[in-house]
Amino acid sequence: MEIIEILKKSENARLGILKTNHGNVDTPVFMPVGTQGTIKAATHKDLKEIGIQMILSNAYHLYLRPGDTLIKDLGGIHKFSSWDKAVLTDSGGYQIFSLGVLRKIRPEGVEFQSHIDGSKHFLTPERVIEIQDNIGSDIWMCLDECVPYPSSYEYTEKSIELTKKWAERSKKAKKNGKAALFGIIQGGFYKDLRIRSANELIELDFDGYAIGGLSVGEPKSLMWDMVDAIMEMLPHDKPRYLMGLGFPEDIIEGVKRGIDMFDCIIPTRVARNGGLFTWEGKINIKNAKYQKDKRPIDENCGCYTCRTYSRAYLRHLIVSHELTSFYLNTLHNIYFYNELLKKIREAIKMDVFDEFYNEFKSRWKGGEIND
Amino acid sequence: MEIIEILKKSENARLGILKTNHGNVDTPVFMPVGTQGTIKAATHKDLKEIGIQMILSNAYHLYLRPGDTLIKDLGGIHKFSSWDKAVLTDSGGYQIFSLGVLRKIRPEGVEFQSHIDGSKHFLTPERVIEIQDNIGSDIWMCLDECVPYPSSYEYTEKSIELTKKWAERSKKAKKNGKAALFGIIQGGFYKDLRIRSANELIELDFDGYAIGGLSVGEPKSLMWDMVDAIMEMLPHDKPRYLMGLGFPEDIIEGVKRGIDMFDCIIPTRVARNGGLFTWEGKINIKNAKYQKDKRPIDENCGCYTCRTYSRAYLRHLIVSHELTSFYLNTLHNIYFYNELLKKIREAIKMDVFDEFYNEFKSRWKGGEIND
Repeated sequence: MEIIEILKKSENARLGILKTNHGNVDTPVFMPVGTQGTIKAATHKDLKEIGIQMILSNAYHLYLRPGDTLIKDLGGIHKFSSWDKAVLTDSGGYQIFSLGVLRKIRPEGVEFQSHIDGSKHFLTPERVIEIQDNIGSDIWMCLDECVPYPSSYEYTEKSIELTKKWAERSKKAKKNGKAALFGIIQGGFYKDLRIRSANELIELDFDGYAIGGLSVGEPKSLMWDMVDAIMEMLPHDKPRYLMGLGFPEDIIEGVKRGIDMFDCIIPTRVARNGGLFTWEGKINIKNAKYQKDKRPIDENCGCYTCRTYSRAYLRHLIVSHELTSFYLNTLHNIYFYNELLKKIREAIKMDVFDEFYNEFKSRWKGGEIND
Repeated sequence: MEIIEILKKSENARLGILKTNHGNVDTPVFMPVGTQGTIKAATHKDLKEIGIQMILSNAYHLYLRPGDTLIKDLGGIHKFSSWDKAVLTDSGGYQIFSLGVLRKIRPEGVEFQSHIDGSKHFLTPERVIEIQDNIGSDIWMCLDECVPYPSSYEYTEKSIELTKKWAERSKKAKKNGKAALFGIIQGGFYKDLRIRSANELIELDFDGYAIGGLSVGEPKSLMWDMVDAIMEMLPHDKPRYLMGLGFPEDIIEGVKRGIDMFDCIIPTRVARNGGLFTWEGKINIKNAKYQKDKRPIDENCGCYTCRTYSRAYLRHLIVSHELTSFYLNTLHNIYFYNELLKKIREAIKMDVFDEFYNEFKSRWKGGEIND
């Protein structure tokens, strides 16, 4: 199944259209994270107004609560959550492996205790496919194993063998021809294992390829080395998805390398802690210096929050522990990320991505800025 | 200053227009509570879409945080919070007296420790007027003393003498001719003291009269006895405001007696705990019975939440501790209260308030219903 049409390239950066059962998605795309069937502190109405075309949800979380069969009974995730655009579900591999001592990996699958109530569960690659079928998402991910950083060569090698076997079983288990299934390339922080994992998954012929197991504590340069090692190998007619990244500076780096899809909790989680993005970097609205600041978060932002409220008011809301703060901050950051991706796509279209990249980098200050 | 125009009466129930610096307000009116300059878990955009014409904020809270002079410097509460409709500020008398051992009443004013950081403060009736002038609200309240239930006759009598003196001083301190100032009738749970307090305040000729110090733990019938004792005395050409009430059944009782204005945290606080109003009563959406319930909260409700989501989804959000739950539930309850007041006004207009009252009461079940 060919689900992406590449319209244009600017060096390695790709402009495309991802075709899903719930509409076309302009790529490169950033998917806001709605782990439990909602973006935290935002409504789907807001997302549509901003122009979001695809969100990410999590099969593991929805399986535990409210349950994948319940979602199926209620008409699937789109109807249940009143979201008629695309949904990608992560398998939950990353979340399960983050449980640490609460999980045990076996060749057949993974045994774990629920983070909610401690109940015992056993998930196989086949069951994870069934869960995603019940959820009714548009793009599914195979169950995979993430290894921590650092991990030994031997352990990582065994792990990619397991991930490959699980990918094979996932593909075999998938009957639904409408949804797309992505394989997840692992291989820890060993270039040859990354290449081997990529080769093995490409051989299985998935609808798209994700790069998983990155941004788990390793240095940034090492992370990009792992991406660089396999980018050239990935089929040009399939979407490439860099999982769990990241800050604006990471997204622009990924696009430069030819990545089409991103997701991350950063814009929403950071918003709830008072971190608000501007085109120079991130400010923290809790800072006392914003107490009387009449300016919007960013003078050039067209979001509801910036069109309506001063930094002074937003600071008042967060220091006063007002729930409205979570909402207004979240809207701004999601809008900002959406604008960033729009500008990126525009730059590729005009074949000036490199200029855009350089200009962005010259303005952008990592971490927290003091604007 | 005459600030209310009574358009019609149906028995004692009054239909009117309250005139403020920020627009006309149809009465009877229910003001959602925005203690700290925002309705909790809702935006002012939402309130306008619902049709809210006036909100309540709190002088005491805004004085402590972000500070009344800061709000003044930033253009007043309307500009600061981007709300161009009417704002009434409570003086904070009730909040200060709720501090218990943390406050000391003196004839000049009240000394208290901040509930935020323990810092010491001293507020006089004059300072509370100045605070409201700085905030820039449309209707101001005098600083008053609330007595707990039960309180002795002697203590309550002394207390209304103090409230009267503070009311006199408040009136004298007020220079701003644009805002309206309300006196607050106290008198605990002694009819003669309520009557005396009402007489004394009426003599001072305020722009409106509030009935304070009720719903503090006394039986409902005793509360209505206190209201009934003074309703006939209140000038017909002035607005009457029953402070801090209440549930839908309380509002309809108040309207029946000739009350024009209400405020209460009930719709918003209850929403955050999963209590959602229907025309039969309040359901608790956390209940397991709603797990697969495809219906909206109320089939006859036109709010965004009811037009968009099932009870099953709303239950999922609240049991999953999703912030979106606070937002969607709050919108529904505010919409519900606004509809209730609209229907009440319509019934008075058609001179069928008594029929409406009886029909409402025949359907309405107090407490939590099992729908």
